[in-house]
Amino acid sequence: MQTTSATLSLLREIKGPTGICSIKGKRNQNLRGKLQRAGRNMSPKITTELLRQLRQVMKTSKYVTEPIQAYIVPSGDAHQSENIAPCDCRRAIISGFDGSAGTAIITEQKAAMWTDGRYFLQAAQQMDSNWTLMKMGLKDTPTQEDWLVSVLPEGSKVGVDPFIIPADQWKRMSKALKSAGHVLVPVKENLIDAIWVDRPQRPCKPLMTLDLSYTGIGWKEKIAALRAKMVERKVLWFVVTALDEVAWLLNLRGSDVEYNPVFFAYAVIGTDTIRLFISGDRMADPSTREHLLLDSALEAEFKIQVVPYESVLTELQAICVGLSPKEKVWLSDKASYALTEAVPKAHRYLTPYTPICIAKAVKNTVEAEGMRRAHIKDAVALCELFNWLEKEVMKGSVTEISAADKAEEFRSQQNGFVDLSFATISSTGPNGAIIHYKPVPETNRALSGNEIYLLDSGAQYKDGTTDVTRTMHFGTPSAYEKECFTYVLKGHIAVSAAIFPKGTKGHLLDSFARSALWDCGLDYLHGTGHGVGCFLNVHEGPCGISYKTFADEPLEAGMIISDEPGYYEDESFGIRIENVVLVVPAKTKYNFCNRGSLTFEPLTLVPIQTKMISVPLLTQKECDWVNDYHRKCREVIGAELKSQGRHEALQWLIRETEPITKMH
Amino acid sequence: MQTTSATLSLLREIKGPTGICSIKGKRNQNLRGKLQRAGRNMSPKITTELLRQLRQVMKTSKYVTEPIQAYIVPSGDAHQSENIAPCDCRRAIISGFDGSAGTAIITEQKAAMWTDGRYFLQAAQQMDSNWTLMKMGLKDTPTQEDWLVSVLPEGSKVGVDPFIIPADQWKRMSKALKSAGHVLVPVKENLIDAIWVDRPQRPCKPLMTLDLSYTGIGWKEKIAALRAKMVERKVLWFVVTALDEVAWLLNLRGSDVEYNPVFFAYAVIGTDTIRLFISGDRMADPSTREHLLLDSALEAEFKIQVVPYESVLTELQAICVGLSPKEKVWLSDKASYALTEAVPKAHRYLTPYTPICIAKAVKNTVEAEGMRRAHIKDAVALCELFNWLEKEVMKGSVTEISAADKAEEFRSQQNGFVDLSFATISSTGPNGAIIHYKPVPETNRALSGNEIYLLDSGAQYKDGTTDVTRTMHFGTPSAYEKECFTYVLKGHIAVSAAIFPKGTKGHLLDSFARSALWDCGLDYLHGTGHGVGCFLNVHEGPCGISYKTFADEPLEAGMIISDEPGYYEDESFGIRIENVVLVVPAKTKYNFCNRGSLTFEPLTLVPIQTKMISVPLLTQKECDWVNDYHRKCREVIGAELKSQGRHEALQWLIRETEPITKMH
Repeated sequence: MQTTSATLSLLREIKGPTGICSIKGKRNQNLRGKLQRAGRNMSPKITTELLRQLRQVMKTSKYVTEPIQAYIVPSGDAHQSENIAPCDCRRAIISGFDGSAGTAIITEQKAAMWTDGRYFLQAAQQMDSNWTLMKMGLKDTPTQEDWLVSVLPEGSKVGVDPFIIPADQWKRMSKALKSAGHVLVPVKENLIDAIWVDRPQRPCKPLMTLDLSYTGIGWKEKIAALRAKMVERKVLWFVVTALDEVAWLLNLRGSDVEYNPVFFAYAVIGTDTIRLFISGDRMADPSTREHLLLDSALEAEFKIQVVPYESVLTELQAICVGLSPKEKVWLSDKASYALTEAVPKAHRYLTPYTPICIAKAVKNTVEAEGMRRAHIKDAVALCELFNWLEKEVMKGSVTEISAADKAEEFRSQQNGFVDLSFATISSTGPNGAIIHYKPVPETNRALSGNEIYLLDSGAQYKDGTTDVTRTMHFGTPSAYEKECFTYVLKGHIAVSAAIFPKGTKGHLLDSFARSALWDCGLDYLHGTGHGVGCFLNVHEGPCGISYKTFADEPLEAGMIISDEPGYYEDESFGIRIENVVLVVPAKTKYNFCNRGSLTFEPLTLVPIQTKMISVPLLTQKECDWVNDYHRKCREVIGAELKSQGRHEALQWLIRETEPITKMH
Repeated sequence: MQTTSATLSLLREIKGPTGICSIKGKRNQNLRGKLQRAGRNMSPKITTELLRQLRQVMKTSKYVTEPIQAYIVPSGDAHQSENIAPCDCRRAIISGFDGSAGTAIITEQKAAMWTDGRYFLQAAQQMDSNWTLMKMGLKDTPTQEDWLVSVLPEGSKVGVDPFIIPADQWKRMSKALKSAGHVLVPVKENLIDAIWVDRPQRPCKPLMTLDLSYTGIGWKEKIAALRAKMVERKVLWFVVTALDEVAWLLNLRGSDVEYNPVFFAYAVIGTDTIRLFISGDRMADPSTREHLLLDSALEAEFKIQVVPYESVLTELQAICVGLSPKEKVWLSDKASYALTEAVPKAHRYLTPYTPICIAKAVKNTVEAEGMRRAHIKDAVALCELFNWLEKEVMKGSVTEISAADKAEEFRSQQNGFVDLSFATISSTGPNGAIIHYKPVPETNRALSGNEIYLLDSGAQYKDGTTDVTRTMHFGTPSAYEKECFTYVLKGHIAVSAAIFPKGTKGHLLDSFARSALWDCGLDYLHGTGHGVGCFLNVHEGPCGISYKTFADEPLEAGMIISDEPGYYEDESFGIRIENVVLVVPAKTKYNFCNRGSLTFEPLTLVPIQTKMISVPLLTQKECDWVNDYHRKCREVIGAELKSQGRHEALQWLIRETEPITKMH
């Protein structure tokens, strides 16, 4: 699944009693998808009254110290999450536009929405005439700063929720406004929440504890390792703000945010204290209490103080009051302005990636084994699905939506299944060319023997997270379709089989994925790979493979990323071949003067449709790669299909993993 | 030639009456090299008295507003040049250390020198016990800022020449000092100059004018194009600070700095004025006056005002006094702190690459033709050299130095030869593994039939600039040497034959050069290519191919860069294969939806020694590339050798360009 595809569409239509969809995986695996798809709002939301109310509170001293002339509503939540909970969908509430990316700015007279090319159409449909759509990426579209400067009266105040805006964005915006004589100010309370009548509560779902058989390392050990890093960098305190970092650190999982098994919490780690900021009743659960040793006699430095979620700011401020001159507090540079500002500048230690983010990316052997198990189960589900599709598609009764639902059904039959890891991209023919497509009733298309089908899907299992894309044809692909598929495959193999010295950053591998396409004048406009969590977020830092991101950390053995080149022909078809791969040591003849070398091992073991391959375009080495890969699929997944008694899918697997041969 | 190799060693020993080596190319082609090599100072300079004097002027109100407690002496000149003139070798004067990279800091008690791994040994040898060597890149070495903070008394003032320090470095240093309670201050006059008794004068050599047959575009047209960019960016003034940008803009060349055909000058371009800051007597030359139309009736906006070089700061300050609120002045963000600071912040418009830098990088057809001609002449010289070497080496009389001198001799016989384009890297056996090696008497080694010889050399011709590396063996290379050479060749070909969409940045091609080496666990620790000027600096921005530089501009048809992967085996041998290549449009099957595609055309046409190739390691496509390349060498260079009557070299060329065949 591509990293720019973060989608939170229509969460507000499907929320349960706690404000989030309460229909989960196994119990009702298809219902959620159906509800979600049925609810898409394609007519504009009438926002006149809401905007009037907002402009009212923009002058109300309960919310703002002085009246503000503009209010900024970003997309995110207080943890800079990619997926957000319904209670955080503030920009959607005020504007009606519920795409995954967009920033609203409301002045006394105007309301404007900045979003990117993926959402021009949707935003135009969902917003009423109170709103001006600002099409980002087009030449004549002003930046938010420039627009504000052009419309604001002299010496204006611009408000924003300091918990929602990351510190670096605050800095940029504040500087631009200041140089034009305005000032950016934090509001006392979120102004959208102030006017949001039936705002859902913040989700507070039960937690799941993970024991050593899943995590490999206990939370005490993780905290000890973090403290070692703190000593190394000479910092006294570390503030954990990202939800997946809190979850990883404490070996806990939740379901507060869709697709991401995380829960709302912060943690503040001192050299001999641990504060966990979380809504209190969740700590009443005996298994959680036991897991966190809340009632045990324990070394003082591992005693967890449970503190209400909302008190993180005041507690952090109190900590900072007590700091001696050279004492430092470590935060991510993506943390909110509110928390960053709570630490006086002289005491701040900011890094782009936290030590937790980096440690989390390197999977230990237990985690890697879990990921392997998850991918075996996932492959079983996909073999079942593809076998089913081959029989059903030609009857004409399968649609993009029903195929996605069937995929979820097969996955949910697997042991340890928890949820999908993202909204399934199930697309056929021209829909495949829309990179971030998700089928909805208005666009739903029947699968057929005449066009290419692309399925990009994945799941959360208690052992690990999956993300796989296969592109297939149920009839006879054209020579051109095969040609394009083969170039994409060559790119996939070039990355998967790449050998590179330790210390190499992922972005240096990006061009390997494109070389075969480039030779023929083809390309794709997305990155090649992203980090994948272990029963955590399907997109995680700090590594990846892209032509764009140069802030990535070097690849290390144990890191897990996706390898997903593609090719998209507008209004015609889409091709993507995606495996999740594990970084492993490589054997080379000369071993980089003992610097050591790395390569990838595919964790995804799902056949690549050989019918789509134009074998003469492959080199012998590439042919061998395909045959070796299919041999492994047959061995590993075949054994699992057999032991699960899935004989028809096994037959399908055997057919699909027949070796290919290059004629001489 | 590698971009980090900037060397200015021993310039002060070889300066002529105007303070720079007056021994030029044709007249005395070998003398300069000999003088240079003989003069290398490997015993420490006694600096006690100099340091005493410097510490004196650090407190003298003629030079500093208030006494300063530390003084920083960077490497550069006021134009941030890679090569500097003898009068600018201030860091070498105060310390004795004359490597190309290093920063000296002198406090009231201490003196410290920061330099990188290339120079640890040399710096240690050249500096006396007054100095502490700070080995950059080692874990325990403090940064300059950290060291200053650790040694300075509270509330210290640290001085630096504001003309020498780039604005961005000032900013970083100033911030760090400020946060520790100190302050960075500009000195009134350079303190080294104040104590430098026999400081050479700033070079002021005659200028050379280039007509349209060399430049393709007249200087008036270039200024009009620059003004169009200024209008686009809404700036009123443009300050040209880099020497090669002044030279390119006015179609003039000089010889003030070794190897770079530039002259000391600034230019300030207004919407209807041109100010050229240059030492006045150079404008007395009739051909220069005519070229610049100084005495012609001319549209007012092209009338050049000639202003003394030294008055650039006061003139710029005067311009800024007259600016209306929104009027901007455009500068490179690498311009000196003095000039940047002369423009009030609100009026400053800084960019990493200037429009001149970008325009200069894209060679027009006349320049590209000139570069082609220069490379043909250069290849003739190298064919002569290699033919001579093959005969002479086995006699045992050829050394690295005599080979370099012979190369210069053959080049100087070519029409339009002006100078070398950098100090020749002539290295055999273990010396080849020192990437930035330059032979000196202490290290000079005889070429033999037992080891690999690497020659990285180039010249300035009036038509263009060359830079070529060939690696060869005069006896029988070992299987391992051939294997390594062949991987390097595969990397060279992978870049040279790469096809990529328009808009691709060079750094995305870097891994292509390494892939074959990586597969066997080998790598090289330098970039793969740099921009090359047209009868200008052999290293120029804004494009290149490297794993490190991500600030490069996209490659465009007409840009010229080097393609120079290598492999270095410590204490054993070095291999590098370097061609200068021109970015040209490519023909592809599908042409990136009319986005267009690019590839490279080699301008360098010198045989690659086939004796060094392990043919079975090449693919058929790579074999074809080698044979096509050699066919072109034979055709183009063969014709030129014939017309120059160089029959023996022609026979050598024909032998060396025999096709290779892959056995089946």
